[in-house]
Amino acid sequence: MAATLKDVANRAGVSTSAVSRAFTDGASVSVKMRRKVEKAAAELGYSPNFLARSLTTRRTKLIGLVSNNFHNPIFLEVFDLFTRSLQDRGLRPLLVNLSNETDPENSVRMLHQYSVDGVIVASSTLPPMFSKAFRDKKIPVVNTFGRYFSSPEVHVVGIDNIAAGRMAARELVACGYTDVAFLGGPQSATSTQDRLKGFQEELAKHPGVSHRHSFADAYSFKAGRAAMLELAKRDLAQAYFCGDDVLSIGALSALKDVGRNVPEDVGIIGFNDMEMASWENIALTTIRQPIKQIITSSVELMVAMLDDPERYPEARLFPCEVVTRATLRARPEAIT
Amino acid sequence: MAATLKDVANRAGVSTSAVSRAFTDGASVSVKMRRKVEKAAAELGYSPNFLARSLTTRRTKLIGLVSNNFHNPIFLEVFDLFTRSLQDRGLRPLLVNLSNETDPENSVRMLHQYSVDGVIVASSTLPPMFSKAFRDKKIPVVNTFGRYFSSPEVHVVGIDNIAAGRMAARELVACGYTDVAFLGGPQSATSTQDRLKGFQEELAKHPGVSHRHSFADAYSFKAGRAAMLELAKRDLAQAYFCGDDVLSIGALSALKDVGRNVPEDVGIIGFNDMEMASWENIALTTIRQPIKQIITSSVELMVAMLDDPERYPEARLFPCEVVTRATLRARPEAIT
Repeated sequence: MAATLKDVANRAGVSTSAVSRAFTDGASVSVKMRRKVEKAAAELGYSPNFLARSLTTRRTKLIGLVSNNFHNPIFLEVFDLFTRSLQDRGLRPLLVNLSNETDPENSVRMLHQYSVDGVIVASSTLPPMFSKAFRDKKIPVVNTFGRYFSSPEVHVVGIDNIAAGRMAARELVACGYTDVAFLGGPQSATSTQDRLKGFQEELAKHPGVSHRHSFADAYSFKAGRAAMLELAKRDLAQAYFCGDDVLSIGALSALKDVGRNVPEDVGIIGFNDMEMASWENIALTTIRQPIKQIITSSVELMVAMLDDPERYPEARLFPCEVVTRATLRARPEAIT
Repeated sequence: MAATLKDVANRAGVSTSAVSRAFTDGASVSVKMRRKVEKAAAELGYSPNFLARSLTTRRTKLIGLVSNNFHNPIFLEVFDLFTRSLQDRGLRPLLVNLSNETDPENSVRMLHQYSVDGVIVASSTLPPMFSKAFRDKKIPVVNTFGRYFSSPEVHVVGIDNIAAGRMAARELVACGYTDVAFLGGPQSATSTQDRLKGFQEELAKHPGVSHRHSFADAYSFKAGRAAMLELAKRDLAQAYFCGDDVLSIGALSALKDVGRNVPEDVGIIGFNDMEMASWENIALTTIRQPIKQIITSSVELMVAMLDDPERYPEARLFPCEVVTRATLRARPEAIT
């Protein structure tokens, strides 16, 4: 049988409340007492029960990590960074898979039952009501990769997707393309809507460049491939800004099938710069979203909210940058 | 403020112990009483605290999900299937990232502190002592993708990697290759050791087929690419059985760089059949490991162990199969 708090108290010859204090951060207990208790605990193989303790501290150190896309390889990087960053701060991720879920209430109820200290909604496709549902239950929430609002209702950490759309358009124009297109992710995703908006705004400044747009069903290989196979039945644009990297790789696969060379016949620029984009047999030119900084900042913000749950909502936005590899033609040399 | 059990009792006009019983599976309570309590709870937005309740039921419904490879895309499928399968049974995954961890004691202590009901170690590369460390603490444990022992000490669900190595060798021989090689994952991984053993055992039956082997540093794109670039400096074999799919994709990338065509110059057969292996621009011939069945069975076994923690350890092994795509030359027609 596992040793109990009482066993430790007996062995150390102290009260149970002294043992309890010895294992509580910031509780009043002498160094001598703490050492005595820790020695007895080590001898008995006792470790304190975080959950039992949570009834008095009201802290479980559990953070709900909510995601709805398990088919996009970028999320493996996202899970890796989140779990390590949370673990480094003594927090633990309770993973919630919303792949088939449309009602936020189920997840809110479930995470409420586990008394999570906070929730990180890691998604650019879930509607904002998901994050708000947690906020309404007074659960600290951060929407990582969420939409930037000038008056945010929940904490958002990510990028300015409108600026990102502009950046993609500027890059295509700088490479000399005169007929370009946006192949977005799902039309309902706020990230797709905002990237399209920025793309169109920038191109409105270049009347010599024609542009169009369409959408894929999901941020996935299959959806990107299907959408590009469909587009290839008509006239292709000279270059495409694709919704994200995995969608771009699907589009590249379709172009190969229809015998179009990249970048000679058609250019592709992706979005995210996930690990796979740098694989030498993919070599995708893309726009880098600083995933690591976004996730570190999300966890820092969560930690700050645990101390101050009423913290005024903020949007933390990180700049993106173009990563040039092999799927766009080279920029013409600057004329001197 | 969130409603408490006492608030619900007051509103329903019943005792707090009646409310508690109404929310406990299998507790003695009339249908009428349960309805009355549920109505009051719904009106107040009350949901029971699983963790507080766990102090009496001794069940948290938390399952530790331990992994150490966040760079292999197959693990995104593994996390997706595990989280959905656990959620379907009312269980919740507490994700533990062991990427930089070599000592099992830290994870054992941490998961013990969270009073997890059980632990799933999802890894073919962690040494068996990781799973045993949980068992020694009387925490129900399943080692998914673990090594099959004829006398298992912990529950193992996965495949017979020796048989899988034999299957790969048979396939290469059947395709008519006479000079073949195994490019394994890390030499310390039991999955690599066993696949090599089976590969060599099978080829010993074919004296006309020469064979050799080497190892990559990890089950990753980078390691597969680096290993194949190194091999290409010397004589390449006619075909390689690569440690897994992501390693195979790295090897394919290296072969492309050195101007070798697949399957005309060099054949590749992978292992796992992860989603990406079927992407049309990869089209990897591979050996399918039935991931979905393995994970469903792992969760079923965990559920059974929650009812009977002393359950006699078993190994559940699933058959693999060759999935033919485009990276091995076609089998010669059978002579009639």
